[in-house]
Amino acid sequence: MSASLKSLPSNPAFTLPQSNDVQGTTSASGPHIPAEFEQTLTLLTSHRSVLGYLLLSRSQPVSIIRHSGVVFEGEQGRKYAHAVGRIVETVQAGLEEVAGESTDTDEIRFMRIRTKRHEIMISPDERFLLAVLHDPTS
Amino acid sequence: MSASLKSLPSNPAFTLPQSNDVQGTTSASGPHIPAEFEQTLTLLTSHRSVLGYLLLSRSQPVSIIRHSGVVFEGEQGRKYAHAVGRIVETVQAGLEEVAGESTDTDEIRFMRIRTKRHEIMISPDERFLLAVLHDPTS
Repeated sequence: MSASLKSLPSNPAFTLPQSNDVQGTTSASGPHIPAEFEQTLTLLTSHRSVLGYLLLSRSQPVSIIRHSGVVFEGEQGRKYAHAVGRIVETVQAGLEEVAGESTDTDEIRFMRIRTKRHEIMISPDERFLLAVLHDPTS
Repeated sequence: MSASLKSLPSNPAFTLPQSNDVQGTTSASGPHIPAEFEQTLTLLTSHRSVLGYLLLSRSQPVSIIRHSGVVFEGEQGRKYAHAVGRIVETVQAGLEEVAGESTDTDEIRFMRIRTKRHEIMISPDERFLLAVLHDPTS
């Protein structure tokens, strides 16, 4: 594994800029993607080990705002989007459960799931969910 | 953050030795914990930034085999155990969903959830789930 790959998961490119930090507005035709996001997404697709990304709305159910990579095309992309939405929902519900009566609920900042074949990185934001599929062996 | 803390998440101490690699047997009185696990658990608790661990059965619902740390005492420990069980179940269901008709289903090797306050690391094994709560700021 090269040094650049090793450093990939903690790369700032995998963290969505918080949408309240930027001057983004939501237009009637769909969510506006702030310039910083565009930059992040371009950076992501240039990484050789990145198989694709899914930019999802935080609605329930989630909807795909944009995607890249053959792995996220069509039906397969919708399946991944659904799975990512469910995972984030379950983790958030778990954090609320352990917080109990406390009003100061914890929240997800970043999630990394290493599987037999891939690595899925999920970066939530107030309005978006960014999921990146990464091949750790490439 | 010290170098040793930075290297913590990829530390082999966080990976459960696969139970089929060891000569462990399950006794009638409860699951036998192989010697390698004991070593892993001892290593974990010696880390200053580790707030505690939960060693869970992979049954549904999960049950706590062993725990350490005030954060996992009593009712709070049971809430965390339930949340961890649900999270692993949801991720595994997601992997099965994206695999579709293919018989070669992917499986979780390691999961890391960074929240506003903590980091939760989950290492599944055929028979156990190890969840470690880590304070990334300490």
